[in-house]
Amino acid sequence: MKIEDLGEIRLIERIVKEFHADKQLVPAGAGEDDCAIIDIEKARGGFKYLVVTTDTLQESTHFPRGISPFQMGWSAVAVNLSDIAAMGAYPFAFTIALGIPLQTEVSFVDELVAGIETCASSYHTIVVGGGITRSKELILTGTCIGFADNPLRRSGAHVGDLICVTGSLGNAALALKVLKGELEVPDRVAALAKKALFQPTPKVNEGIIIANSGVATSMIDISDGLALSLAEIAKKSKVGAELHEDKVPIFSEALRREGGLDLSRHERRELALYSGGDYELLFTIDRRAIKDEAFIERLRREVNMSIIGNVVPPQEGIYVKKGERKEKMEIRGYQHF
Amino acid sequence: MKIEDLGEIRLIERIVKEFHADKQLVPAGAGEDDCAIIDIEKARGGFKYLVVTTDTLQESTHFPRGISPFQMGWSAVAVNLSDIAAMGAYPFAFTIALGIPLQTEVSFVDELVAGIETCASSYHTIVVGGGITRSKELILTGTCIGFADNPLRRSGAHVGDLICVTGSLGNAALALKVLKGELEVPDRVAALAKKALFQPTPKVNEGIIIANSGVATSMIDISDGLALSLAEIAKKSKVGAELHEDKVPIFSEALRREGGLDLSRHERRELALYSGGDYELLFTIDRRAIKDEAFIERLRREVNMSIIGNVVPPQEGIYVKKGERKEKMEIRGYQHF
Repeated sequence: MKIEDLGEIRLIERIVKEFHADKQLVPAGAGEDDCAIIDIEKARGGFKYLVVTTDTLQESTHFPRGISPFQMGWSAVAVNLSDIAAMGAYPFAFTIALGIPLQTEVSFVDELVAGIETCASSYHTIVVGGGITRSKELILTGTCIGFADNPLRRSGAHVGDLICVTGSLGNAALALKVLKGELEVPDRVAALAKKALFQPTPKVNEGIIIANSGVATSMIDISDGLALSLAEIAKKSKVGAELHEDKVPIFSEALRREGGLDLSRHERRELALYSGGDYELLFTIDRRAIKDEAFIERLRREVNMSIIGNVVPPQEGIYVKKGERKEKMEIRGYQHF
Repeated sequence: MKIEDLGEIRLIERIVKEFHADKQLVPAGAGEDDCAIIDIEKARGGFKYLVVTTDTLQESTHFPRGISPFQMGWSAVAVNLSDIAAMGAYPFAFTIALGIPLQTEVSFVDELVAGIETCASSYHTIVVGGGITRSKELILTGTCIGFADNPLRRSGAHVGDLICVTGSLGNAALALKVLKGELEVPDRVAALAKKALFQPTPKVNEGIIIANSGVATSMIDISDGLALSLAEIAKKSKVGAELHEDKVPIFSEALRREGGLDLSRHERRELALYSGGDYELLFTIDRRAIKDEAFIERLRREVNMSIIGNVVPPQEGIYVKKGERKEKMEIRGYQHF
């Protein structure tokens, strides 16, 4: 059955019954009224700040070939949660504006909605509302609100801070290369890489741990590549950056275990600096605030962190260091226009 | 200049400088960080509830021929503010996700942004963030958050309550008829009607006054016609409704003053019950809570209200009453699918 056969009202009824909210926290949730209603005191849990972010995914621009409707829905939530994670904030509620072509199958929408609900609830986020419009292509705009006491800004890095990154980069880019036929890899490698691309993991818990560590000074998520995110931290913090290229972790441990992914120096740099879609967190740490080696080891384990450089004075700019050689970093990455 | 010549980063810089926020209330506003940051205590002003709504407008579905970019931006905010108004809530912050075709002129975006900022600031609403993606057609998804102590639900109507509406209906529909060439009217009439269609006025202040009056029991905005909104109140409140069709105010005072708009009985009913785009508020009042005639007269003046019917027991259904004749009301209106 197509959604045009179902009609708007029945489509909305079908969707909203998948979203559940605790009435104490959210007296009016998805589909219930003109707005969602949230009890501030109960929802905030004592936090000082409300954080808000919005992000759009659409079929022609953002969805790679082979992604499932479930994964599209998941991704629409994940990209927003990644922005919440980048503040070290706790996500609370999510709204989803769906633009759907008339000819879409109802089963497609069911899977899409399951992806939205699964990702949101995985991170204790309540889908409180949304809307549907008929559109030429599938377009998903999510908005997420959350709470924080000490939101980590892009502007807090200081000279002498350590530059760190969670997880690993290049996983999503590897999948894109495989999909484009630019690279042949074993099936298990392809499957792992595609999972990273199709169903990104927002680093919500990592963001909270980093913010609560008390030693982080700035943070941003890496959606369009490390170079762009590092340049943004440098710009907002009015500092320079020294990046140790070889320290940037390429490919997840699972992928590296599979092996067979030998990279040229050029390919490695492209993946480390200019590949998008991994949604890791880039952050800086005040090294004077680190109590001891055990403290940093625990943090390293908890958020799967690598130290990849140092914050330097602004006049030094942003550069890549390999051994004693310094090279100005080219600032580019994924841009929508 | 086209936006593809400007590039994403410069486009965003150009847009965000138009949006201003008080740093005390909003430590991080549009374009400043991964999320906007709002100081809850300062922003909420003692209110108990946070309300959230999201709504999308897109070129092919929602924008009539002749609408200006400024009015498109205005409308994207207005439709969201109308949902905030329907709760009797105070709007506080707004985010805008823009989908823009590559070939769009930068001057078009400038006007669009001016419309967004003008509408938002007219209702003391701060544009705190957003995003831009390349899309096949212009698509604007707004999300608005606000605060309220006693949000007026759709579900609060009781048998015996008065049914009321703000302003007048049919203004936007008149403009659509003129645009389609179905009706010839004097230029001044056409101009007034087009203003109503192209640049709708969200009834934010009226919504607040109604909620604060202490006598209102339920409220909804009328975006897709009175019939659908009344049916929704009836459904959510588990009541029936008696509508006095002749009491439904058709056309604004300014339009009626121009004259020359004689309607057949059928045309009048279509405008009263089934025309969309006026963004008025439909609400119910507990008549026992009305102190005296002076009280209701003041409310009538303050929100330009008409009493158009009564809430009746659910088994009576929803009907239109003309003199002693009762007629079951047909439930239809604008649906997106």
